[in-house]
Amino acid sequence: MINVAILGYGTVGSGVYEILKKNPDTITKKAGDILNVKYILDIRDFDDHPEKEIFTKDYNDILQDNDVSIVVEVMGGLNPAYDFTKSALMSGKTVVTSNKELVATHGTELITIAKEKNVNYFFEASVGGGIPIIRPINQCLAANTINKIYGILNGTTNFILTKMFAEGTSFESALAEAQELGYAERNPSADVDGHDACRKTAILSSLATGTFVDYNDIPTEGIRNISTTDVLFADKLGYVIKLIGAAEIDEAGKISAIVAPRLVSKESQLSSVNGVFNAIMLVGDSLGEAMFYGRGAGKLPTASAVVADVIDGAKHLHTNKWVIWDKPEESFMAEPMDATYKYFVRTTDKNLIADLGGSEVGTTDEEIVFVTDEMKEKDFLSKAEERCSFIRILA
Amino acid sequence: MINVAILGYGTVGSGVYEILKKNPDTITKKAGDILNVKYILDIRDFDDHPEKEIFTKDYNDILQDNDVSIVVEVMGGLNPAYDFTKSALMSGKTVVTSNKELVATHGTELITIAKEKNVNYFFEASVGGGIPIIRPINQCLAANTINKIYGILNGTTNFILTKMFAEGTSFESALAEAQELGYAERNPSADVDGHDACRKTAILSSLATGTFVDYNDIPTEGIRNISTTDVLFADKLGYVIKLIGAAEIDEAGKISAIVAPRLVSKESQLSSVNGVFNAIMLVGDSLGEAMFYGRGAGKLPTASAVVADVIDGAKHLHTNKWVIWDKPEESFMAEPMDATYKYFVRTTDKNLIADLGGSEVGTTDEEIVFVTDEMKEKDFLSKAEERCSFIRILA
Repeated sequence: MINVAILGYGTVGSGVYEILKKNPDTITKKAGDILNVKYILDIRDFDDHPEKEIFTKDYNDILQDNDVSIVVEVMGGLNPAYDFTKSALMSGKTVVTSNKELVATHGTELITIAKEKNVNYFFEASVGGGIPIIRPINQCLAANTINKIYGILNGTTNFILTKMFAEGTSFESALAEAQELGYAERNPSADVDGHDACRKTAILSSLATGTFVDYNDIPTEGIRNISTTDVLFADKLGYVIKLIGAAEIDEAGKISAIVAPRLVSKESQLSSVNGVFNAIMLVGDSLGEAMFYGRGAGKLPTASAVVADVIDGAKHLHTNKWVIWDKPEESFMAEPMDATYKYFVRTTDKNLIADLGGSEVGTTDEEIVFVTDEMKEKDFLSKAEERCSFIRILA
Repeated sequence: MINVAILGYGTVGSGVYEILKKNPDTITKKAGDILNVKYILDIRDFDDHPEKEIFTKDYNDILQDNDVSIVVEVMGGLNPAYDFTKSALMSGKTVVTSNKELVATHGTELITIAKEKNVNYFFEASVGGGIPIIRPINQCLAANTINKIYGILNGTTNFILTKMFAEGTSFESALAEAQELGYAERNPSADVDGHDACRKTAILSSLATGTFVDYNDIPTEGIRNISTTDVLFADKLGYVIKLIGAAEIDEAGKISAIVAPRLVSKESQLSSVNGVFNAIMLVGDSLGEAMFYGRGAGKLPTASAVVADVIDGAKHLHTNKWVIWDKPEESFMAEPMDATYKYFVRTTDKNLIADLGGSEVGTTDEEIVFVTDEMKEKDFLSKAEERCSFIRILA
């Protein structure tokens, strides 16, 4: 029997408990041993819970119990998740998490401790919720150099943008509906300003390159400024608008990463990824294009990824399975201002098209709308930043 | 150093060699040891090859060399691949393959021998070419019961159908173009009659259920009868036509599997999988819908999946990683005649719509075209089989 402790009995934590209880035979067969939930840590009381005796408010009960081999950290946030994770790994327990903030911030240190202690720090659920992506990259693409990885990594913003496209709704009312349905939080900033997608992009970039990418180094824009006019013109031009987290690795190994709304061609597989679904596209030097699609959030999808990690942890209790990434000795981020894009531009400044070059695609009452040729970000911004609203086009 | 032998230096075999030579450092890092190609078995001469000394025509050179730990069987066909694989496993070598025919026919026996000998029989490349699917199902979905798995599993037929849709081409001329481009063989039967997709469907069904599904038990139809009229009406009704291999598992664990052309709603992610691309959709009880998309064939995509298996084999040289499926004691296939579908029907027999029920959607010079309600296959066929042409609709 392998004892597991769950830290945090919120949406994901209760989903993990539910899945472990639902199919014990299948899970035992796959894990090679019975997985027993010995503790659940939560500051709240769960007196009506059928196993109320396993709840504790004191993390030391778990940390000091040598019979606990696997800790599931699904509390979210940096503190106390960081201290709890670090001390669990230090005392030889494997830790499984869905906590993208912690992985993106302290992942390198925690991965290193796991290796030193011959245990594992697994975080499949931290990117793409239930979509398998970390094992596919690490194992199935082991023979590839990944040149590009990008995708729709946040369900809330994708729900809002899908709504704006399908129904011509404004950002504000699409957001309000997302909040009513529970897809967006009352303070929606982490989602709509791109911070959540940024952390996931950092994790994906680190995975793809095998080297830690700091999310603070990734330029990040949200979708608050996307208007119904943008939506109308994008549609007319054969595009949809999606919040895309993207990383491209050049031949010298330098990474260009950015999180921003993008015009995505309707020919792209990503264009039909709608609602709360997520999708991750990657390009490997041997494999070519591949895409992984599914539910990027939600109780059971996320919990199913966590439980898959628990099963893998159980099969590798005292074997460090992989060091997913190292810390680079020097920065290998490309200069964001040197990245090149085509830009979709709306402006009341009729001279801008002459200054930038490009093709006019239409007008509104007050504005002209045009698409530039491919140009460097610094050239574009130096001429255009204050004079227009713009959206980068995904190549 | 781990010694590898490649059986068959055709498209995939030469791709495997190329990838192993291209990124030796990355591969060594991931495999934990240097992977050395010690032998290549081929009946042909390769006197111009830079390593012509490693070629052999005698399989015994490989079998009797105890320094060879991993055998890559990329010859295709049942014989002598079956004997070679079996004897390699019996003598304690791990075998990696892309040979779907062998896996679908003798997989259960070979998997069992691998377990007995504490080695592995890996075949990621046998389904979906370079698309990671076997590890995602086995590891990432370990906490799920898979209720449904279906997809576009054959690039040749998808190229033909895409062409017919995009350009209104007939089946015959789209096939001729596929043959010119090298996407279809001179005898295209394995592809266009659905046999290739059938073997892959059997492998996917076996993976999804953990129990061997015999491809002989899967009703299989190809795409030879799809006409430009079908394409026109499908398009008008909001569908595309795709050759779909599908397996559904009911609550009692019975499997309904079928390979046939299907009308696929344009709302489905599968509808935009075009050209030689493949995609596999699955539905897990916790995860919900997930899709895996990429190149289902081709030298480097397929070889990259083979090399990923070689790397995993190198990391688990004397550990049987998993028994992917067992042989069932009794058949658990559902009766195909009890499956239910909606049918798209074209007929000159004006009475058929009254006999079957359904909604007329149009007429041609001689025919009426209609869509039935959902009905049992046996009820449909008993009334309609000789009186119409039909395509099942994918629910």
